[in-house]
Amino acid sequence: MAPTEAEQHPRMALALAAHDASGRVTPIRISRRDTGDDDVSIQVLYCGICHSDLHTVKNEWRTAIYPVVPGHEIAGLVTEVGKNVTKFNVGDKAGVGCMANTCQSCESCEEGLENYCSKITFTYNSRDKDGTVTYGGYSDMVVVNQRFVIRFPDGMPLDKGAPLLCAGITVYTPMKYHGLNEPGKHIAVIGLGGLGHVAVKFAKAFGMRVTVISTSPEKREEAVEKLGADAFVVSSDASQMKAAKGTMHGIINTASASMSMYPYLALLKPQGKMILLGLPEKPLQISAFSLVSGGKTMAGSCMGSIRDTQEMMDFAAKHELTADIEVVGAEDVNDALERLAKGDVRYRFVIDVGNTLVAA
Amino acid sequence: MAPTEAEQHPRMALALAAHDASGRVTPIRISRRDTGDDDVSIQVLYCGICHSDLHTVKNEWRTAIYPVVPGHEIAGLVTEVGKNVTKFNVGDKAGVGCMANTCQSCESCEEGLENYCSKITFTYNSRDKDGTVTYGGYSDMVVVNQRFVIRFPDGMPLDKGAPLLCAGITVYTPMKYHGLNEPGKHIAVIGLGGLGHVAVKFAKAFGMRVTVISTSPEKREEAVEKLGADAFVVSSDASQMKAAKGTMHGIINTASASMSMYPYLALLKPQGKMILLGLPEKPLQISAFSLVSGGKTMAGSCMGSIRDTQEMMDFAAKHELTADIEVVGAEDVNDALERLAKGDVRYRFVIDVGNTLVAA
Repeated sequence: MAPTEAEQHPRMALALAAHDASGRVTPIRISRRDTGDDDVSIQVLYCGICHSDLHTVKNEWRTAIYPVVPGHEIAGLVTEVGKNVTKFNVGDKAGVGCMANTCQSCESCEEGLENYCSKITFTYNSRDKDGTVTYGGYSDMVVVNQRFVIRFPDGMPLDKGAPLLCAGITVYTPMKYHGLNEPGKHIAVIGLGGLGHVAVKFAKAFGMRVTVISTSPEKREEAVEKLGADAFVVSSDASQMKAAKGTMHGIINTASASMSMYPYLALLKPQGKMILLGLPEKPLQISAFSLVSGGKTMAGSCMGSIRDTQEMMDFAAKHELTADIEVVGAEDVNDALERLAKGDVRYRFVIDVGNTLVAA
Repeated sequence: MAPTEAEQHPRMALALAAHDASGRVTPIRISRRDTGDDDVSIQVLYCGICHSDLHTVKNEWRTAIYPVVPGHEIAGLVTEVGKNVTKFNVGDKAGVGCMANTCQSCESCEEGLENYCSKITFTYNSRDKDGTVTYGGYSDMVVVNQRFVIRFPDGMPLDKGAPLLCAGITVYTPMKYHGLNEPGKHIAVIGLGGLGHVAVKFAKAFGMRVTVISTSPEKREEAVEKLGADAFVVSSDASQMKAAKGTMHGIINTASASMSMYPYLALLKPQGKMILLGLPEKPLQISAFSLVSGGKTMAGSCMGSIRDTQEMMDFAAKHELTADIEVVGAEDVNDALERLAKGDVRYRFVIDVGNTLVAA
């Protein structure tokens, strides 16, 4: 006889869940599996609010399986470990990012590129191996296979470090993979949101020259004074764009709006690389000439491997690099989601799960 | 007083030139400069007919400066060297590709990426440093700065080797630069023309698995039996395309027709790379999702550096790799251009300049 859900998932947890495309979350009780032999149970203390959470709870990607418990920037303390677990002890600070599991046997998994496994189980709103739907970090506890749990290095705060598990690795991976992490190189960051602001910080930590490109002139001060960018270009200002032509080794494009790539590709030096991280709905229009004539690259990138995520966290801790956050309580998550939809956050909301998500 | 053209270019040469957008070439006399201190004079024996020649003589790129003497796959013998020339001696076998000169002082030139110099002088139909227009290899002699002259290694035939100076380096460069030259990797070649057929040969010489993708089922035998491809996929056959999904590390796309990139990007493994070499007139339509979800790359590439061209020629000689050619006389060049426009050549026309371009 197939196991009942109560048998599969006997542990009760508190969570915030969206129930329909309004995207509003309310507290509910969910069940979690027991700590398996390879599992780590984590008491969630903080969880970042990623833009993907917003897309998912509002069903904008047509993938929502309600109730949706979002959250894949999870930071907390290890409360229990399975008998095969070697990486963690009870009491360790630990995190979980976008992935909760993968097949662990395909070419991508064997090469340590789990993020490209075709059978990936995302941390929330995804079918787990047992057929149940995964619930994310807007919850007081999670149970995750040890391979997908990240160590929080000494000195890395749980609240400001949580967003690195998605926003951080998403920008770090293409910078490393495409050689856009070398001192002296010039990189641009398009869009100064959750991803963009940590891209600026990583680029500076790598010793690079950084230009922020934005549609909003009023972001100049933030970009230069606060985040340490070397220059700021308003994308609608033709003279500024012209002056920057041919000066950049790479561009990290975090924009998710449809845009013409031509003026941005022109900013690249020969063999320069534009990295796409956003997912505009409309197809991009690209003239082959703008890639061929300068030997330029347009590449996509999606999350990052577990090995790179750990490396990124260790690098960030060493450079005292964290996300700029605004901490909110569980009762304020709906307000935070509304503000996020308007871009009204500098730069990441993080839910104080540990102190505020409590049974009524 | 400014020098007269006769003073600048005192040496007379024979050539084939196009005079208008009909693209038909006729014999004319042109003048060349004397061998300068850094120059190499070359008696042209063979010159390949590149598809660019056709575009230029017909003014399809709106860049023709008539009379146009095409030809940038030049092979011959050194007849004279300037006093600073160290690389060549009289009697050496030598070649010239797409570039006749560059600024030699910009960042690209200093890095040995002359092909991306913004002040590049192309071998024909281009302003030279003295303000005159360059004439290509459909001519009995050329005078070229030594930096842009390539040694023909022992054993490399002048006729079958000439096309490597453009077609060869154009495919070799992105394979090297993007890591698509490693034994065991799987690469596809779209389009089996001048570029495509040498791409197959280089990929096999690198020890790779090669699939040819073509719209023409009748090219299968050629691709597999003659050129040594491991597999052949007809792009319009949905079941063949589906079977090839996610199997390739890279695709060398030599097609210059506008095409939807989506089904081809789907053939790539995660982190796979599509290299664009052709220049379709219409913008490419690319969904960001098809690049982002698999961390895939779409990159352009244009010609190659002089250092890489020499390396490519030496590699080709070592592997007895040459172009498949059809040799034509000077009197047959118009017929050859017409056949090339119809794709009726396997796979490159080469003009026997030495024996057939003679004064009437």
